Amino acid sequence: MALVVQKFGGSSVSDATGIKRVAKRIVETKKAGNDVVVVVSAMGDTTDELIDLAHEVSVTPSGRELDMLLTAGERISMSLLAMAIISLGQEARSFTGSQAGLVTDAIHGNASIVDVTPKRVFEAIEDGAIAIVAGFQGFNRGTGDITTLGRGGSDTTAVALAAAMHADVCEIYTDVDGVFTADPRVVPTAHKLDFVTSEEMLELASSGAKVLYIRAVEFARRHHVTLHVRSSFSNKAGTIVAEPKEGETVEAPIITGVATDKDEAKITVIGVPDKIGRAADLFKVVSDEGTSIDMIVQNISAAATGRTDISFTLPTGDGPRVVASLRRHQESLGFESIQYDDQIAKLAIVGAGMRTHPGVSARFFSALADNGINIEMISTSDIRVSVVTRLDSLDEAVRAVHTAFGLDANGEAVVYGGTGR
Amino acid sequence: MALVVQKFGGSSVSDATGIKRVAKRIVETKKAGNDVVVVVSAMGDTTDELIDLAHEVSVTPSGRELDMLLTAGERISMSLLAMAIISLGQEARSFTGSQAGLVTDAIHGNASIVDVTPKRVFEAIEDGAIAIVAGFQGFNRGTGDITTLGRGGSDTTAVALAAAMHADVCEIYTDVDGVFTADPRVVPTAHKLDFVTSEEMLELASSGAKVLYIRAVEFARRHHVTLHVRSSFSNKAGTIVAEPKEGETVEAPIITGVATDKDEAKITVIGVPDKIGRAADLFKVVSDEGTSIDMIVQNISAAATGRTDISFTLPTGDGPRVVASLRRHQESLGFESIQYDDQIAKLAIVGAGMRTHPGVSARFFSALADNGINIEMISTSDIRVSVVTRLDSLDEAVRAVHTAFGLDANGEAVVYGGTGR
Repeated sequence: MALVVQKFGGSSVSDATGIKRVAKRIVETKKAGNDVVVVVSAMGDTTDELIDLAHEVSVTPSGRELDMLLTAGERISMSLLAMAIISLGQEARSFTGSQAGLVTDAIHGNASIVDVTPKRVFEAIEDGAIAIVAGFQGFNRGTGDITTLGRGGSDTTAVALAAAMHADVCEIYTDVDGVFTADPRVVPTAHKLDFVTSEEMLELASSGAKVLYIRAVEFARRHHVTLHVRSSFSNKAGTIVAEPKEGETVEAPIITGVATDKDEAKITVIGVPDKIGRAADLFKVVSDEGTSIDMIVQNISAAATGRTDISFTLPTGDGPRVVASLRRHQESLGFESIQYDDQIAKLAIVGAGMRTHPGVSARFFSALADNGINIEMISTSDIRVSVVTRLDSLDEAVRAVHTAFGLDANGEAVVYGGTGR
Repeated sequence: MALVVQKFGGSSVSDATGIKRVAKRIVETKKAGNDVVVVVSAMGDTTDELIDLAHEVSVTPSGRELDMLLTAGERISMSLLAMAIISLGQEARSFTGSQAGLVTDAIHGNASIVDVTPKRVFEAIEDGAIAIVAGFQGFNRGTGDITTLGRGGSDTTAVALAAAMHADVCEIYTDVDGVFTADPRVVPTAHKLDFVTSEEMLELASSGAKVLYIRAVEFARRHHVTLHVRSSFSNKAGTIVAEPKEGETVEAPIITGVATDKDEAKITVIGVPDKIGRAADLFKVVSDEGTSIDMIVQNISAAATGRTDISFTLPTGDGPRVVASLRRHQESLGFESIQYDDQIAKLAIVGAGMRTHPGVSARFFSALADNGINIEMISTSDIRVSVVTRLDSLDEAVRAVHTAFGLDANGEAVVYGGTGR
């Protein structure tokens, strides 16, 4: 008998029909002889609707109270799901984050899990019941207050429970068949991957692949949890995300997939005095705005002027705020001007095979150059090469690279679509 | 400095505008120098909408899961209310039933409060914050599960907290100005009462007055909690419901008010064998349907036939179910036939003055007779006389009685309108 953790996002349980469909699927897993723990997000747009309500009564809602409010969302979906399962003849019990022992720090709106004590969840499955756990939420032991985990929180809840309960697999249900070599909406020849290493998945997620949240993948990797990303609309096997099994050093493809991110903008700060600590001052101003910057490029200083230009990318949504903050600090930072460009996109190739295959970057850049695509910025990691291109040439770039690395036929690779929170 | 518990029903917080209005009122009470604990119901129709959702996924929703679902309602209203208060510059903290220490038995959907340990609520007001507590909900210590208190649960929560915290007053906010001598929609000369004893309020609530729920009044009486029933739409003083102060034996009016109940039906079981225990068997069948019967009349047995007729009243909503159940047991109970009549209404006069004024019943019956109103059933208590009349003559009856007891000018008495749960 296996212990299976299944996570269903908000789009899978957006109405009574969806809840009944998911209930049926869960009962099938149970009847196949498994112990089942389910993590569920709030129904459809519930969270957004609650946030709207909060903003109707308060310009800046209290973090503690916003968490209290939002956790009502999973309370509704999880109890309805439990009822639907019970009406199919199986025992089921729903548990809030605190009942399921999801202990977090006290950072409201973006709490981190610090401990998982799923005593009641264990008791439920020992009694033969299916346990339904609210995703996205936990509680802080010190204050006794309810917390939420921020974006991708339900994925993280599922992985954390799977780790704490030593589950055999953590199934992440979504509206696509799994992780693809590229976004099939852009690359018609893209295909589903059967297996991706968690290291690769982490790079893919960081590069814009939206099937899984980075935090959840990191958590899974650190705690050796096997993920199975699959569709809630079919019974087909999806993509397994795990550590490669020891001894199983099959010939890895050079690259696994191509990820893209259109929601990035570029800020270029021109004429920054080339003094020690000035770049640090500048990025302090940026990070104080709570944004996460990605690529950074600093031009070689022109000796004549003693000044340099610094470019970096960041989520488009944060762009105007960061620009405004930099302008407020223009005098103390001493730069000359700012350029803001939200017509860029990020393209990354990811693959563990890079480590043993030299020349991957050259092949990547050639494929882009051969198609007349200009590269504006470059960044690399151990198993990833990312570039910034013009937004309007991104789709062509993805197709060119997908072909250049032989992914069109039966290679391996990325990720598209969205998960709930 | 006084400790004030304020309860706001669902109609007072049905949208963002209502929530902000209530927040303003709470802040005024706080700024007047009081410690304030607020009990709030779910917004407007939230509870009914959640119940509808439950029935979409399950024909007979699990009691445990239904309680989990419904408690999401107060979670939403209380956190929004706390946010609205905070945005007015006052500190506020919302607490679920379990966080506020409302311990109940394990009867899902209709739990009773067995203990109140409001440690966190005390801490909040000691810190100078306004505490917002979810009405209607609690938790069971044995199972760790969430429970709900059933109809009128938020009133009960407020009274229980007021009792446990030794509050100076428990204010019940509603959409009317207080407790009236009669329903002003029926009796234009009805007026608001400044004071009603809790014993009278109990009889009024039992007789159909809907401003307060019986359970909450009983709880208040047992724990000597002073209630103040008042409008959330005005600052006028409402009606105080309390024990009469010792030594304050003012000349009580003979009757305090006239209560009515149109949601009653009458069942007459004809030709019941006049044998010992047969009536008990019959009412066992009735109570097994979970209904609460009110008046019972048994005719004097006709010696010739050895049979008798038994009539009783019950809530109209339970009528058809009870009739069907009696028909199923017709053979074992041995009666001849059943009559069902949902065109009746109940009318009651209530007043502590009855104890010292003989002839109240006679005056009551005369007033009805003088207006050609037939009395079908009669029941009395220490401070109440109730009769059953035709539904279509009820309004005329109320006006006649109101006048006969001198309430039109400046007397005292009842109650209309509705509270949330």
